[in-house]
Amino acid sequence: MRTRPLKVALLGCGVVGSEVARIMTTHADDLAARIGAPVELAGVAVRRPSKVREGIDPALVTTDATALVKRGDIDVVVEVIGGIEPARSLITTAFEHGASVVSANKALLAQDGAALHAAADDHDADLYYEAAVAGAIPLIRPLRESLAGDKVNRVLGIVNGTTNFILDKMDSTGAGYQEALDEATALGFAEADPTADVEGFDAAAKAAILAGIAFHTRVRLDDVYREGMIEVTAADFASAKAMGCTIKLLAICERAADGGSVTARVHPAMIPLTHPLASVRGAYNAVFVESDAAGQLMFYGPGAGGAPTASAVLGDLVAVCRNKLSGATGPGDSAYTQLPVSPMGEVVTRYHISLDVADKPGVLAQVATVFAEHGVSIDTVRQQGRQDGGGDASLVVVTHRASDASLTGTVEALRNLDTVRGVASIMRVEGE
Amino acid sequence: MRTRPLKVALLGCGVVGSEVARIMTTHADDLAARIGAPVELAGVAVRRPSKVREGIDPALVTTDATALVKRGDIDVVVEVIGGIEPARSLITTAFEHGASVVSANKALLAQDGAALHAAADDHDADLYYEAAVAGAIPLIRPLRESLAGDKVNRVLGIVNGTTNFILDKMDSTGAGYQEALDEATALGFAEADPTADVEGFDAAAKAAILAGIAFHTRVRLDDVYREGMIEVTAADFASAKAMGCTIKLLAICERAADGGSVTARVHPAMIPLTHPLASVRGAYNAVFVESDAAGQLMFYGPGAGGAPTASAVLGDLVAVCRNKLSGATGPGDSAYTQLPVSPMGEVVTRYHISLDVADKPGVLAQVATVFAEHGVSIDTVRQQGRQDGGGDASLVVVTHRASDASLTGTVEALRNLDTVRGVASIMRVEGE
Ligand SMILES: NC(=O)c1ccc[n+]([C@@H]2O[C@H](COP(=O)([O-])OP(=O)(O)OC[C@H]3O[C@@H](n4cnc5c(N)ncnc54)[C@H](OP(=O)(O)O)[C@@H]3O)[C@@H](O)[C@H]2O)c1
Ligand SMILES: NC(=O)c1ccc[n+]([C@@H]2O[C@H](COP(=O)([O-])OP(=O)(O)OC[C@H]3O[C@@H](n4cnc5c(N)ncnc54)[C@H](OP(=O)(O)O)[C@@H]3O)[C@@H](O)[C@H]2O)c1
Repeated sequence: MRTRPLKVALLGCGVVGSEVARIMTTHADDLAARIGAPVELAGVAVRRPSKVREGIDPALVTTDATALVKRGDIDVVVEVIGGIEPARSLITTAFEHGASVVSANKALLAQDGAALHAAADDHDADLYYEAAVAGAIPLIRPLRESLAGDKVNRVLGIVNGTTNFILDKMDSTGAGYQEALDEATALGFAEADPTADVEGFDAAAKAAILAGIAFHTRVRLDDVYREGMIEVTAADFASAKAMGCTIKLLAICERAADGGSVTARVHPAMIPLTHPLASVRGAYNAVFVESDAAGQLMFYGPGAGGAPTASAVLGDLVAVCRNKLSGATGPGDSAYTQLPVSPMGEVVTRYHISLDVADKPGVLAQVATVFAEHGVSIDTVRQQGRQDGGGDASLVVVTHRASDASLTGTVEALRNLDTVRGVASIMRVEGE
Repeated sequence: MRTRPLKVALLGCGVVGSEVARIMTTHADDLAARIGAPVELAGVAVRRPSKVREGIDPALVTTDATALVKRGDIDVVVEVIGGIEPARSLITTAFEHGASVVSANKALLAQDGAALHAAADDHDADLYYEAAVAGAIPLIRPLRESLAGDKVNRVLGIVNGTTNFILDKMDSTGAGYQEALDEATALGFAEADPTADVEGFDAAAKAAILAGIAFHTRVRLDDVYREGMIEVTAADFASAKAMGCTIKLLAICERAADGGSVTARVHPAMIPLTHPLASVRGAYNAVFVESDAAGQLMFYGPGAGGAPTASAVLGDLVAVCRNKLSGATGPGDSAYTQLPVSPMGEVVTRYHISLDVADKPGVLAQVATVFAEHGVSIDTVRQQGRQDGGGDASLVVVTHRASDASLTGTVEALRNLDTVRGVASIMRVEGE
């Protein structure tokens, strides 16, 4: 075993960074055995230098992250600051000064993954980011390496713990969105500003990263269709139950049936209770992967939290350090299949549509005609008179598989029918 | 990209080997892109040379596997023959002649893993075997690499598809063991001689491999406690249901609470219906991993079959080829923590015990005294008069956590009580 240590610069020492530092200290011997050389924490960049940080030698702490990555003796930079800048410049500077990089930064990777991978390649450096998607769950490595000899057709997952917690609460208690969000906030599962989670931005960043790796193609954040879950109601859960389903916020990356294009999207969807994703509770994450040879695989675990995320960061750190020692680099970017990313309109799936309609003869026939005219075939229809006796009824239509564009056309035409008072909800049905 | 191909020798072209060859041909471009050089099938060793093998150039087929691995121009040997010999000698010879090895051979790895790893190290070669445990499910790589910076405390899994199929049938239909086995055989889920599966030998080999990797220690097949599932009855399933449980054949590898030793075992056990492993149906496999930082992870997928197993083999092939090109080797054997493997008596878990007892006053007190004398604390007792009115009753005792040795002592003493007519079943309770 080499005795000269590999030097690690830690950028950020918050929820994740402090756990990375802790494990590097407490597991130093194990890490050295697994890497083949000791690792030394050579510097820690933060914003507030005076904050007391347990277990961290104050002499290592600096507010000048740029100077730290420019030192020239740093082997690996661990970026757990988050956000676009200064993280992006720091990572690029790290590559320029001979370091490899481990990052947990999904926002940055989703936005600038291509440029960062190119920078890593230019300097024969590694860029690893297992922690950026689904926290502790090994997912990037299995997709990049274990399935490297297979062809992935679909990735379907729950990749945001906050929204899963909220939806699980709504499902199990009948609570509305706001009530469930309040509980999530009180328990620390949602941030003070939950927008990134509940509007699906966080999941969309992960979908972009997953689609890129799964399909060896470039998928940018803008390519991902995104719909949040703030409009999911207790009534939607009741409809889902009636169908033997529950509702999850899903990230779905698919290869088109003809193999010529891919899609990536994030939206709430009904999935059957018998689907393994339906039983993913609380803030857990789980991702289903379907491939030609392996069939259906699922990966499940904690999607966030300091220690779980640090576990993923450290797994990457060990790999990157081993590569440094052997002079090799790991499997880098593999966007060699430049498949086009199709718009949402070309996605094909099933739909659950609730309509408020006039309670009179012939309405069903009218509605059915509109579906038929748009080439959307109906699987089941459930018709209910309303409790309030107001002369209105509700009509729940579940379709066979159809393109999103046809469905959108259908819904527009339905809204123009006199007998349709309103479209109460439209929800996609997945996982069948 | 390098244009000179890497040469692969395929040893065995049966269920798994034929799929490996097929994917190497159909996915040749993808593999080349992921590796950075084309891969060429340079030879295929089989037993019956005249058998027609679709898609395989007959000029490549040989019965002289030894000559093939000795050719000297082979970069990677893929061993999918199975069994101990000639597989072991062929792998060793491959290392001696400069090749790296990918194998799916659990029996060999469990028995001789240490010697094979040493041979690989001696020749700076790779030995990869993702397919040896849980077929297509990425498990070895996540344990070896993704969790390399974490500390694994427990691996708990369903690693044999045949027995899971049988137990799932018994659970869902109320069938007995023989009836469920017959169905499994008819459907091709069990071999003509099902011994290796139903007696737990196959699962024990996988447990040895998993424990070794998870705890960085040497665990031999003989170290694994093994109990098959042929004695599981419909009555056991009824008892399990009454407790809100089902029965699975589990492979369980644990680090002792004090961290100073490990255990590995395979036996049927009751697990709560709420545990994610309880809903693993049919011939699927799933493995739970518990670690310090990551918490609970689960990996799920097809545990066998030609194409799924080939997917794992090819993932390894890509990694090994990449290493060949860069002149590096992957993470090898890591048995640097030589922890002792404790015998079954030291395993601590809960038990579900069914006793046939005389239906008269004082029996429960007698039985409870025996448990107390052996330091086994009782959680619940359920007492039932028998339907046949024969003056006998049944007593179902569920214990708190106790060592296997104390439980064995308890059961022996119970058998010596006049009022205990027999011990109908003893089943461990896991996953709580
Ligand atoms: N938290 C999770 O569960 C989780 C899960 C998966 C991925 N991630 C990702 O991990 C990354 C870090 O998340 P986190 O939760 O650990 O964030 P955090 O708790 O807010 O910590 C951020 C750290 O970065 C430091 N920092 C901020 N701006 C800086 C600057 N300009 N220069 C130097 N240091 C600066 C902060 O310094 P001070 O300590 O002085 O404020 C703090 O130590 C993010 O990319 C996030 O998406 C987090
Ligand atoms: N099948 C699965 O689902 C599965 C799953 C996980 C792991 N595995 C492992 O994968 C390995 C292969 O399994 P399999 O199911 O593919 O077995 P298989 O169908 O029985 O194929 C064995 C192959 O090895 C060849 N062979 C046997 N003895 C040989 C010898 N002395 N020299 C050269 N070739 C020889 C056979 O040749 P002929 O074709 O001429 O008979 C056949 O092609 C085993 O280690 C198994 O444990 C299998």
